[in-house]
Amino acid sequence: MALAANDLTQGQQFSAALVDDLKRTQIVQYAGASGDYNPLHTDEVFATKVAGYPTVFAHGMLTMGMTGRLLTDTFGDGRLTTFGGRFSSQVFPGDDLTATATVDRIRQEGDEWFADVSVSTTNQDGTEVFRGTATARLDA
Amino acid sequence: MALAANDLTQGQQFSAALVDDLKRTQIVQYAGASGDYNPLHTDEVFATKVAGYPTVFAHGMLTMGMTGRLLTDTFGDGRLTTFGGRFSSQVFPGDDLTATATVDRIRQEGDEWFADVSVSTTNQDGTEVFRGTATARLDA
Repeated sequence: MALAANDLTQGQQFSAALVDDLKRTQIVQYAGASGDYNPLHTDEVFATKVAGYPTVFAHGMLTMGMTGRLLTDTFGDGRLTTFGGRFSSQVFPGDDLTATATVDRIRQEGDEWFADVSVSTTNQDGTEVFRGTATARLDA
Repeated sequence: MALAANDLTQGQQFSAALVDDLKRTQIVQYAGASGDYNPLHTDEVFATKVAGYPTVFAHGMLTMGMTGRLLTDTFGDGRLTTFGGRFSSQVFPGDDLTATATVDRIRQEGDEWFADVSVSTTNQDGTEVFRGTATARLDA
């Protein structure tokens, strides 16, 4: 399931729907998995009445983790050597998220081949919620 | 729970134990939360007999998510504007992980203050499993 350098061309794009109607329970699952129990993400009363948000919102790292799934689904697990980005808008329960990855560069380092990729995740209104870059190791 | 620019000094460090004896169940929880069900992370038979790994291993994004918890615990939720890094070694069930964040720079952009932070996550043998950088928005 890993890609070789020959399988890719610069500018090639990959897209995936990451989630359709994000459930509060998925946010709670992420709290349990990550150990990040900040009630802004899981307690509607706290988030609205105490903190003044319109509702609870997803951990940024959950959005980033779902975005990473597009990359590992595309390039293979254990092939991602770097991944990072910017959290630009909050993600709320009920949101639909779609991610698109673009191959910016295919390059060789010694015997190894890598793809430099940029990725953008948007919600149902077309608002970008995360924009990042990643590097994936390819088969030679 | 947010920090102001005055609360920080360049070179200041924050550390936290992220997990002690990582459980296979936590990896399965992350699979459920992220939707990344690649059996390399959750199926011992597949990981060892089919794929040839010594055992299942954690999603890189779980390690990164736990590392991000140190940052959001320190700087406040919703304060992380960027986060990224390099996955340098695999994380296996039973591992203990510790993260240390270092304030590299405190800077002003218009009316807003930011901290540039580097972070390193190591296992019980002192092997670095993740190294990254992040930006956190501070109170003025």
